[in-house]
Amino acid sequence: MTASIFIAMPGNEEAAGALAQAHGATTGQLELRAFPDGESYLRFGTDLSRQMLAIVCTLDRPNDKILSLLFAAATARELGAAKVGLVAPYLAYMRQDRRFKPGEAVTSREVAQLLSNSFDWLVTVDPHLHRYGSLGEIYRIPTSVVHAASLMAGWIRSNVADALIIGPDSESEQWVSTVAKDAGAPYTVLEKIRRGDRDVEISIRNLGDVSGRTPVLVDDIISTGRTMLETVRLLKARGVAAPVCVAVHGLFAADAYEMLIKAGARVVTCNTVRHPSNAIDVHGALAEALKTLRVPAN
Amino acid sequence: MTASIFIAMPGNEEAAGALAQAHGATTGQLELRAFPDGESYLRFGTDLSRQMLAIVCTLDRPNDKILSLLFAAATARELGAAKVGLVAPYLAYMRQDRRFKPGEAVTSREVAQLLSNSFDWLVTVDPHLHRYGSLGEIYRIPTSVVHAASLMAGWIRSNVADALIIGPDSESEQWVSTVAKDAGAPYTVLEKIRRGDRDVEISIRNLGDVSGRTPVLVDDIISTGRTMLETVRLLKARGVAAPVCVAVHGLFAADAYEMLIKAGARVVTCNTVRHPSNAIDVHGALAEALKTLRVPAN
Repeated sequence: MTASIFIAMPGNEEAAGALAQAHGATTGQLELRAFPDGESYLRFGTDLSRQMLAIVCTLDRPNDKILSLLFAAATARELGAAKVGLVAPYLAYMRQDRRFKPGEAVTSREVAQLLSNSFDWLVTVDPHLHRYGSLGEIYRIPTSVVHAASLMAGWIRSNVADALIIGPDSESEQWVSTVAKDAGAPYTVLEKIRRGDRDVEISIRNLGDVSGRTPVLVDDIISTGRTMLETVRLLKARGVAAPVCVAVHGLFAADAYEMLIKAGARVVTCNTVRHPSNAIDVHGALAEALKTLRVPAN
Repeated sequence: MTASIFIAMPGNEEAAGALAQAHGATTGQLELRAFPDGESYLRFGTDLSRQMLAIVCTLDRPNDKILSLLFAAATARELGAAKVGLVAPYLAYMRQDRRFKPGEAVTSREVAQLLSNSFDWLVTVDPHLHRYGSLGEIYRIPTSVVHAASLMAGWIRSNVADALIIGPDSESEQWVSTVAKDAGAPYTVLEKIRRGDRDVEISIRNLGDVSGRTPVLVDDIISTGRTMLETVRLLKARGVAAPVCVAVHGLFAADAYEMLIKAGARVVTCNTVRHPSNAIDVHGALAEALKTLRVPAN
């Protein structure tokens, strides 16, 4: 489908502009601010009547953003929009995908429910699909997914000589092997033992021969960065070349980015979450993913 | 109806305990914390199967709380709760009750929609009903409302000799006259001209004779406190006794409370929002309001 108007939630202006240009569409205006008591004020500055609307909002640090999105979608419908879709370059809440302990909220499902109730379609980049096979298992609306592997591989091919692609764990092997194949580089995966949100142990005994290679650590998300940081330190202790960390989504909780830089790594991310490390552009791929999406007329 | 289990969202433990005691019910456990990336983790520590559940959460500074409530309600249903209700001593987002400018979100309606989709019933204290006649205009679930006027009047009667009740504007007259009648005191209302979120002009030309009286300013919400602060200053300029400010809901945005105290006022609120100024207990009235609520069996 093609959207006729793209509207950025605050901070998503660049993505909305690129998508609008690729679709020969316009960008619309949205004002969002907080009242003194902490409530949100939201106003569309563009006529939405009969428009095919795409709201662009990446969902790092998602809680405030999700409520604003629910307000925006409901308001857009009241204002007469024909369709209201969501482009979320980073889709939050995909990691709580099972009730690990009794009584836990499976927030991936709850968020999918809320967004499916509010939007007609969803386009995103590499959602964290671990226990779900596809977004269709939890989203009741048409979805389209950009796979960033080939874009990441392209960047590695152009910027890193003699790369050795290193994945964080065996679960990532299929994805890591795709990146490596596209990049024309060998790959290996590490072993990871997770003890808590911030406590992860890494083993590099699978590393093999790294002589003359630049290690390129790849992952879908850098959040606390503990996995990558630990790996960077283990690699440095082995005396190999300074590693490159490449991720789709750079969330960089707390001082994650600074710690990686300080440990000697070069850090590169896709521009799904705005950050100084952004070097891989996904906007063109997002525009294409939206074009291939089929949304029923009603 | 009677709830069999009351669960507090963080900060609402005292209210949940009082309500449970009044209903001869138990309190349950809920864990709510933030992951390093800003997502919420939520877990019920109590078996909810076939329970009549009441979640207690006041909604000052509401955005994070609303999303957590939506997660909690959906999870409670998945865990087998028979009914899931909400006790929100302060109900947020009631002031955006009309599209004042084209394109604005009418967030009172959007929040009502979200909560009505998630909960089976709602109990609250004096929601800000200005352009709506009742909660039923926007909430599709059974609701019950505590009117704090008589509790406030009781406090004034016991604590202020020779009170003159002063309402902020003509719209508040009906409510102010009820408080005054119950308190056995005369009343007047001021004129208010609002120019923005923080910019309000007050006229006290309706004040009349205040000699020998203690002015008691009453309002439903103190948010920025600018209205009350301006009135306190005008009264002090007239040389009357130090005024008492009494409100149902003390939100106290930024330094609102400190400014009122500094201006020489005594400030008293109901315990709908936890604050050092709380002096009027609404928990008993909330427990009664819930008992009178009729919720269809399904």
